[in-house]
Amino acid sequence: METTALHVEAGAGCDILIEDGILDRAGEHIKAALPRAKRIFVITDTNVSPLYGPRLVASLETHGFEVHTRVIPAGEPSKCAGELVALWEWMAAHGVTRTDAVAALGGGVVGDLAGFAASTILRGVGLVQIPTTLLSQVDSSVGGKTAIDLTAGKNLAGTFYQPGLVLMDPETLRTLPDRDFMSGMAEVVKYGCIWDAGFFDFLAARPSREALMGDIPRILRTCCDIKRQVVNADERDTGLRMILNFGHTLGHAYELAGNYTRWSHGEAVAAGMAAAAKLGVELEITDAAVPGKIESILSPLGLPTKIPCDLEHIRRAVGVDKKGSGDLVTLILLEKIGVVRPLLLPKEDVLAALERLAGR
Amino acid sequence: METTALHVEAGAGCDILIEDGILDRAGEHIKAALPRAKRIFVITDTNVSPLYGPRLVASLETHGFEVHTRVIPAGEPSKCAGELVALWEWMAAHGVTRTDAVAALGGGVVGDLAGFAASTILRGVGLVQIPTTLLSQVDSSVGGKTAIDLTAGKNLAGTFYQPGLVLMDPETLRTLPDRDFMSGMAEVVKYGCIWDAGFFDFLAARPSREALMGDIPRILRTCCDIKRQVVNADERDTGLRMILNFGHTLGHAYELAGNYTRWSHGEAVAAGMAAAAKLGVELEITDAAVPGKIESILSPLGLPTKIPCDLEHIRRAVGVDKKGSGDLVTLILLEKIGVVRPLLLPKEDVLAALERLAGR
Repeated sequence: METTALHVEAGAGCDILIEDGILDRAGEHIKAALPRAKRIFVITDTNVSPLYGPRLVASLETHGFEVHTRVIPAGEPSKCAGELVALWEWMAAHGVTRTDAVAALGGGVVGDLAGFAASTILRGVGLVQIPTTLLSQVDSSVGGKTAIDLTAGKNLAGTFYQPGLVLMDPETLRTLPDRDFMSGMAEVVKYGCIWDAGFFDFLAARPSREALMGDIPRILRTCCDIKRQVVNADERDTGLRMILNFGHTLGHAYELAGNYTRWSHGEAVAAGMAAAAKLGVELEITDAAVPGKIESILSPLGLPTKIPCDLEHIRRAVGVDKKGSGDLVTLILLEKIGVVRPLLLPKEDVLAALERLAGR
Repeated sequence: METTALHVEAGAGCDILIEDGILDRAGEHIKAALPRAKRIFVITDTNVSPLYGPRLVASLETHGFEVHTRVIPAGEPSKCAGELVALWEWMAAHGVTRTDAVAALGGGVVGDLAGFAASTILRGVGLVQIPTTLLSQVDSSVGGKTAIDLTAGKNLAGTFYQPGLVLMDPETLRTLPDRDFMSGMAEVVKYGCIWDAGFFDFLAARPSREALMGDIPRILRTCCDIKRQVVNADERDTGLRMILNFGHTLGHAYELAGNYTRWSHGEAVAAGMAAAAKLGVELEITDAAVPGKIESILSPLGLPTKIPCDLEHIRRAVGVDKKGSGDLVTLILLEKIGVVRPLLLPKEDVLAALERLAGR
């Protein structure tokens, strides 16, 4: 069995370990990374707990940790202030100390919520991310963003807080529903688009879940390594990190148009990347072959390349609807596959291009 | 009029400005320190708002800020999760952006709560502390600790987050009730005890509120400068910063014994310093003249030097009640006035000294 280890420099530094069956060795790795931790507060959800909770807890207890487990309802509504406060009170009632740690076992909702709780209880305790979905393995578990949703929108409160350790068990992906696996693939394809044409071709040559799973350690490693490089350069999200939003601005318009229920995040990002490619061609920045390449990598995965959305939603998401807030908007575009180009463009140019696209 | 400016290195760096009437020039200073801020979210309480709210808001509006104000009920119960969440929702509903800022106008409760909200809304916006009590001017507004209380205890959730600017108007102290002023003086005396014998003597020569107010800018400057030096050396509270807890461990026992209502924080700290001095003498670390000096500086200020508390509470606060959690306890003691000595001591020695003290 091969272990892949990466190191993220941001914060106090964070190791990412990728290994089949690592869940059963979590206790050993956490002991090594956080030698002073005595209690581990495992936070997971109703989907993941029955599948992987007992193995994690057994490994932790074998290594002498005092383990407390809390299972939140699966789904985005749990990423809320009420659950955050309940986690604080729960940890405090169990005598959490500054050398204890939180282990987040699950997808992005669990990771974002548990990370926020870990970063703020006693002004910060240890944090171990154990992402079990493709989306959280390649995206939210690396980078140190934590969050909850507020009434006014998603991810509006949170912290920047690096986990001390990230453990990824590729085997957990086998229990993921197809639609969730493919949604995660949208983010995987994104890394090829913005950073690595060779990786893009590698993915394009594996147009099925089975083929992708045959090389999943390499896929996870490549994505985390790209995200690691971007985050190391821009931990607090003030510059380079914006390239990770390729496909996300238009994707956000689609998520809104579908009221956050019709389309998954990954599906919206897939269609957002396809639309951003076409917009880039219209603006004469993107090579004309790019939209076709993106569509032909996404379609075999069952990901949408076009989502109906009125022009007004798109204008608002891109930021060309408001008067007086500057004459330029930032777009994340591609020059070609593997070469990203964040651009400040005059609003009228973007508006005109959007209208030409809509007219077809 | 003299302005005193200090610079705290921790975080992105923070200026502390001390100046009579600075409230009326807050807008100008905030504009200079946070040039990109557009909206200012003023958080204050029901005591402070009628006294100083309108002057702050007027100064901000004169300098073109869009001002939103929220008044929380005065008192410790407002330092809770419910108020924190309400602040998040309020700022989000008013369209807060990452370049906007929070201004905390009030004492420690307002500063700790508003600081926590500022550090987490959108993962952190600008923060201006405008402390209006002596305790918050010399203690909580400098150092970057934010917090709320949980059911299990005080300050259990929070962040480390440096304000971009601290504005202190010594004139706001004129409206402070006597008991609050003197409680703040306990922390002022603490700085003399742990860091600066000359400052201790300077304070001892001013044994009334009137005399102290005659030199209040120097007093504020000296305290903030000492705290600044300690915080710069230890932003995340893992070492040197513990010396700021002189008198606080035993003080905590007194606060608990009085159910947090009988004694103010400052009163408990005053008695805690007096007791720590006697304990230090018992342990042959503290010069025998110190307890008398501390009592004679505190008594004219109406601060208690002895608070009834059973030995069991004290043992628990000092950490000598538990078996098996190590044979050493950390005590913050003085060698003499101005020379602090944090010490790891064998439990049995501390226990024996506490019993000898109680036997008198």
